Amino acid sequence: MTAVRSEPIPPARPSQTAEPTPAVDLESVLDAAQRAAAPLAALRPAERARLLDAVAAALDAAAGELVPVAQAETHLPEGRLRGELKRTTFQLRLFGEFLRDGGYLDARIDHADAEWPMGAPRPDLRRVRVPLGPVVVFAASNFPFAFSVAGGDTASALAAGCPVLLKAHSGHLGLSRLTAEVVAAALAEAGAPEGTFALLVGTEAGAAALRDPRVAAGAFTGSIPGGRALFDIASSRPVPIPFYGELGSNNPVFVTEAAAAGRGAEIAAGFVGSFTLGAGQFCTKPGTLVVPARSGLVGELRRSALPPAAQLLNERIQAGYAGVLEGLAAHPRIEVLVQGPDPLADPPSPTLLLTTAADMLADPHALQAECFGPTAVVVTYDDESQLAPLAESFEGQLTATIHGTESCDVAGLVEVLSRKAGRVLWNQWPTGVSVTYAQQHGGPYPATTSVTSTSVGTAAIDRFLRPVAYQGFPQHLLPEALRDANPLGVPRLVDGAREE
Amino acid sequence: MTAVRSEPIPPARPSQTAEPTPAVDLESVLDAAQRAAAPLAALRPAERARLLDAVAAALDAAAGELVPVAQAETHLPEGRLRGELKRTTFQLRLFGEFLRDGGYLDARIDHADAEWPMGAPRPDLRRVRVPLGPVVVFAASNFPFAFSVAGGDTASALAAGCPVLLKAHSGHLGLSRLTAEVVAAALAEAGAPEGTFALLVGTEAGAAALRDPRVAAGAFTGSIPGGRALFDIASSRPVPIPFYGELGSNNPVFVTEAAAAGRGAEIAAGFVGSFTLGAGQFCTKPGTLVVPARSGLVGELRRSALPPAAQLLNERIQAGYAGVLEGLAAHPRIEVLVQGPDPLADPPSPTLLLTTAADMLADPHALQAECFGPTAVVVTYDDESQLAPLAESFEGQLTATIHGTESCDVAGLVEVLSRKAGRVLWNQWPTGVSVTYAQQHGGPYPATTSVTSTSVGTAAIDRFLRPVAYQGFPQHLLPEALRDANPLGVPRLVDGAREE
Repeated sequence: MTAVRSEPIPPARPSQTAEPTPAVDLESVLDAAQRAAAPLAALRPAERARLLDAVAAALDAAAGELVPVAQAETHLPEGRLRGELKRTTFQLRLFGEFLRDGGYLDARIDHADAEWPMGAPRPDLRRVRVPLGPVVVFAASNFPFAFSVAGGDTASALAAGCPVLLKAHSGHLGLSRLTAEVVAAALAEAGAPEGTFALLVGTEAGAAALRDPRVAAGAFTGSIPGGRALFDIASSRPVPIPFYGELGSNNPVFVTEAAAAGRGAEIAAGFVGSFTLGAGQFCTKPGTLVVPARSGLVGELRRSALPPAAQLLNERIQAGYAGVLEGLAAHPRIEVLVQGPDPLADPPSPTLLLTTAADMLADPHALQAECFGPTAVVVTYDDESQLAPLAESFEGQLTATIHGTESCDVAGLVEVLSRKAGRVLWNQWPTGVSVTYAQQHGGPYPATTSVTSTSVGTAAIDRFLRPVAYQGFPQHLLPEALRDANPLGVPRLVDGAREE
Repeated sequence: MTAVRSEPIPPARPSQTAEPTPAVDLESVLDAAQRAAAPLAALRPAERARLLDAVAAALDAAAGELVPVAQAETHLPEGRLRGELKRTTFQLRLFGEFLRDGGYLDARIDHADAEWPMGAPRPDLRRVRVPLGPVVVFAASNFPFAFSVAGGDTASALAAGCPVLLKAHSGHLGLSRLTAEVVAAALAEAGAPEGTFALLVGTEAGAAALRDPRVAAGAFTGSIPGGRALFDIASSRPVPIPFYGELGSNNPVFVTEAAAAGRGAEIAAGFVGSFTLGAGQFCTKPGTLVVPARSGLVGELRRSALPPAAQLLNERIQAGYAGVLEGLAAHPRIEVLVQGPDPLADPPSPTLLLTTAADMLADPHALQAECFGPTAVVVTYDDESQLAPLAESFEGQLTATIHGTESCDVAGLVEVLSRKAGRVLWNQWPTGVSVTYAQQHGGPYPATTSVTSTSVGTAAIDRFLRPVAYQGFPQHLLPEALRDANPLGVPRLVDGAREE
């Protein structure tokens, strides 16, 4: 692996982990990624699946070494981290399965047709998807495994056949180096082309890679300002490239009168569990709970036992959280509903704030801002007719949730939320993003910079593929997936119909 | 139709056609488009197919009225325009068929699974694609039907369920108004929501619409500077939106030694026919022909009878063409191979220029620039080993072509061209873009601003859709395509496998 040669990855030592990638190393890493692109693209899907499986097995085997470093750097509990690592290796293996199926290639064959009703004969046209080329992935802070070095962006880009330049998050550099070492060694051992994967350290190295003409796409999970700055770099290049940023989300939850009346205590408990999960550091944390004023739900929440203070990921996040919370709490339309003993301390106790639907509509930008940490806003309404207009006031969201009963008239609310969010939930909580075939983790801006894509689930691979059509080609020069004999056995659309 | 009310579309009269859309009309048109978005999205696919069929039928019925106006405004011959209109209405009907199939929805169902190996139970997740919202379509000059008011971008956006604001091309405003009148009347007659379609006139109105928060996407076919300026507007909005621009392409053709030896005369004739088709005003015009120096092909081309001068679309294009040709012809590494009597006159005779592979590699940017009109560059090479490096020197392309024989060793060249172009042809010519299921009209920048999509073929609909996942939803609140009973009968992926 080039990564290992051009930038040796030693076991994490505090004195070394923060050194940014020097320009000369960046150059060799970019060069190696470019050289790896063609051989990686040329691998059969099942061969790339084998690479992903190898990475998953190596990470599982290294759990005992990785988890303690993650714990030390992120303050997240061991159980959560072990579960997250399991999710991460499951994700790699799921992409492997998905590759072996071959449906992701979207292979299509149109045979020549002299009678094609367009008015001109149809040539033989065959279309398949190919990888974009090297991708820079910017890791997130809050999921040091699942959205970091070997997380969903890396897994889907490698699955697509794109070399990955992984810009490590500064919040867990030791873990990033260790994980990268495991990934690089597993790829090398499994025979991946040299240059398939490399670690970058430092904001400048990441931005420089994103500007480099050898890079074909970017992927990111993080804050709105950080993501927007990188999106702007990607879009303003002489050759613009796709940038798949997952930025911020408030994830509002709407509770109908019937649901509040029927299971208020359960909803209160579920909400508290969800907004404080991982100390509120989920991009799908429900930041707003909209409840009927004339129900016991506000009282339930006021009386609820909030969990104890928990340390946030790092000092920067702690400082940012305290700042946003102070601003919210000082807003004239906000009061404190309930909070623990030390809401602004490090570690902070959770806080629930209170406002009304009318007040939120008066200043939605301020009152719907994402607060990354254990705070949420409870909003009371007088009449269910206020729900759709309130939903309409939100910007693009990763998720939106309704708690209701089957007899509630919420079709209008569902219509609004389907326009606002990438995932709409019913009687469940948005924290926890299952890795599946139908998952959608992405929504209108600022939830993501690319509204047509997802960063979680098997469809995440679509981001790193582009279609190529071959017209009038002889069999032996066609990609295997497009040959008449279908040697890879992939599902195909033939003359507009699914091939049996 | 709102279009008709807010901006009455009179029969084209020269004095009226150039009036730009006033700001007050733009406001009402944008407002109507926003209001149309939800009801248009709510139509079943087959209902939207009926709208497209109605537009197609109305355009076919109006051919006698439309074609003469097109002829007068574009100088294109009647036969070509009748063929183009047929292609245009075929395209609308093909999208209708595609809607009725329902595969475009990419419907997926993951049932709840307590044993999901991720480490946490899988919820019931169901995913379908929904329309983005109002789209501004910027019409092209060179296909006054197929890439204009009712062309591929409009057809695919309407098929997706997005209201269309059509920015007319200034080169055929009379035809644009007439066509818009036919489209708007057909949509109104067929019961489309008011605001589904409207015509905009003027550069400022188009740019203002693209900046408007009610607009969700842009689509464009035209020049590199024009497309890039609009892409920059779309990307730098407070809420960036997708912009699908098809800009410029050189469409190089590579001829192997064996092909030149075996059928040089046929290749010469085919090339001349292709680069002068429509007076060279195709985005897929082959602008470069790479041939072996030691073959009779250069002589064949020198002796070839170029077609007579033909008038270009309009004065602006004539002036631009003459400027680019003058610059090319004056380039120290270029000589004239053959040209008609009046290469720079209006109308211009066709021109073939000559250079060598080494010379082109010395200044690729200048010698590979798109020349919109009846000029192409013939490039000689000494050895087939020069082909792949020469191919590598090209920017992103809509098409790239190889003329070879089955025994030629061109796998390396195919690999390079598959990276450079969206469509790779074998022993055919790139002009003529068939509307099919497997077509790919789009490639790496500057061919298009969105490398992952196509503007021709059924897959063009993908540009205007985004996925939404529903988690834990009751049947009656789900979109029909996701209900267990599958009332629309759409193809679906259920628990990762294609539903039988």
